[in-house]
Amino acid sequence: MNQQYVIGIDIGGTTSVVGLVDEQGHIVAERSFDTQSYAEPLLFVQAIRRGIEEMVTSADLQVRLCGIGVGAPNGNFYNGRIEYAPNMPWKGVVDLAGIMEEAMDMPVVLTNDANAAAVGEKRFGAAKGLDDFVVVTIGTGLGSGIVANGELIYGNTGFAGELGHTNTVRDGRECTCGRKGCLEAYVSARGLQATYNELRKECMVATPGQELPADGLSARAIYHAALQGDSMAIQAFEYTGMILGRHLADLVAINSPEVIFLFGGLAASGELLLQPTRKHLAENLLQVFKGRVRVELSTLEGKSAAVKGAAALAWEVLCVDEPAHEPT
Amino acid sequence: MNQQYVIGIDIGGTTSVVGLVDEQGHIVAERSFDTQSYAEPLLFVQAIRRGIEEMVTSADLQVRLCGIGVGAPNGNFYNGRIEYAPNMPWKGVVDLAGIMEEAMDMPVVLTNDANAAAVGEKRFGAAKGLDDFVVVTIGTGLGSGIVANGELIYGNTGFAGELGHTNTVRDGRECTCGRKGCLEAYVSARGLQATYNELRKECMVATPGQELPADGLSARAIYHAALQGDSMAIQAFEYTGMILGRHLADLVAINSPEVIFLFGGLAASGELLLQPTRKHLAENLLQVFKGRVRVELSTLEGKSAAVKGAAALAWEVLCVDEPAHEPT
Repeated sequence: MNQQYVIGIDIGGTTSVVGLVDEQGHIVAERSFDTQSYAEPLLFVQAIRRGIEEMVTSADLQVRLCGIGVGAPNGNFYNGRIEYAPNMPWKGVVDLAGIMEEAMDMPVVLTNDANAAAVGEKRFGAAKGLDDFVVVTIGTGLGSGIVANGELIYGNTGFAGELGHTNTVRDGRECTCGRKGCLEAYVSARGLQATYNELRKECMVATPGQELPADGLSARAIYHAALQGDSMAIQAFEYTGMILGRHLADLVAINSPEVIFLFGGLAASGELLLQPTRKHLAENLLQVFKGRVRVELSTLEGKSAAVKGAAALAWEVLCVDEPAHEPT
Repeated sequence: MNQQYVIGIDIGGTTSVVGLVDEQGHIVAERSFDTQSYAEPLLFVQAIRRGIEEMVTSADLQVRLCGIGVGAPNGNFYNGRIEYAPNMPWKGVVDLAGIMEEAMDMPVVLTNDANAAAVGEKRFGAAKGLDDFVVVTIGTGLGSGIVANGELIYGNTGFAGELGHTNTVRDGRECTCGRKGCLEAYVSARGLQATYNELRKECMVATPGQELPADGLSARAIYHAALQGDSMAIQAFEYTGMILGRHLADLVAINSPEVIFLFGGLAASGELLLQPTRKHLAENLLQVFKGRVRVELSTLEGKSAAVKGAAALAWEVLCVDEPAHEPT
């Protein structure tokens, strides 16, 4: 009998990755797509369809696909739509799951990337067996997938977990959402850059004439500077971890997770971010939660982590006691 | 056949109320106890046992009790214990459910008062049929019971929902928990009093010699002053609602409830608190949540609301497909 697989798709504003994934979370084959090249969602879906056909053919396996899981920015689990996602080539509300189901003749389930990461952590990662945990995705922006009582929280709207847009500094930095002081404006690649620039400006005032790095250092460059012992870069990470740690203390008071996993590009900075985050979380916890929550790096790290998350969602929702679908 | 009932117990630092409650949430009989009079939990439990026996006898009904639900400050659902509750005569960790089960020979389930309020709202109140909602209890302090995917969130520790101890003003007012700037320090009877006193002090500086109310006006007095048009009292309520509304916007971003119910003594101020809360919630919501969450007063208001909540918990946990227990 043919073995069951799913397709996991990680949709990003720049690149989208499609993987053929087995029940253990192994990615058997993978294809990347330049999201911005497709003016219409249907063209994008058709390209992905061809990619899937190629992967299934060249994988040289007896493949039965039971469905497609998609993680996408502003993806709504309830209706399968991408709603007003910034940085995407398709504006407004896009019924991506609908378009995909029709084009592929296969069930499609869609959610936002942070929720997919949480489902992936539970199925394939370190959250196996945990009923109460949170995955915080920190890359260009900040998102979260929250699991309570063993189930992901989508909320009434399907958009629960917008931790990046909760307030952390009243009337603070401007956020891409149009409001001020959101966590994402501080704890993200963009936030780290802003912090570094602020520190740089302070330093320029304090020591005029000093040789300083050019404006607009990337988060990656700040990371490498910190690794090389650059005190301003280290300070930028410490500030970022302080903001994150004390903010997570509030999340713990609300949902009381057992573990908070950090996931994504900025989380890959490892100890530089982890150490100050843990310190400031511990310092700010309400007594009753002290010693009862851990902060860890996601075990799904790596470039295919988001694909695994999307695949996990498909396994979770589409493959339980469902007849498998032949690839189209 | 005898009709099934449960006992609902609302434990407070000053007064505890015990009710005999039917499946529709009607309180058939009720007794009050002066919590502070009982130096030991066992004495308290014995008094309650006698109260229950009296109620069952005098109710003149064919009563079968299937269990006891208890709402208590710092009550832990997982182990039935009251852990380090301030304002209680019994210090440290008290295994109240255990003591009660032994004394009564009946199953006992215990949680904190805010969680009990949420279960009550779902079973007997306006949250019937809602899968995602929050009950915020605002009295001397502030607590919350959070329901997601139809289930109460207890979290890893059993203490989820400590919304009152999430930060709302960095380095703000001192809180009873020993930290600074907690929501409870602003949105509670105590918080309202502090706000009123701050406004009074500002006013004294601005208009020296003016006749002003004595220090230490109670929340109730501030409420009555506001009803009579006292501008400082109205301003105190507006400030309280502003803090609450903008803080709830963050809770919405995290859990995306359909309705947030306000419950308890300060919530009973009605429009005085509700109007500014709704206004500032709406102003601070992330775009995607606008128009998709409501703030309402709990429909369980009234002095027996907490007893109904505790009873609802018993119905929920102890009476489903369980054989009924005879009253002892």
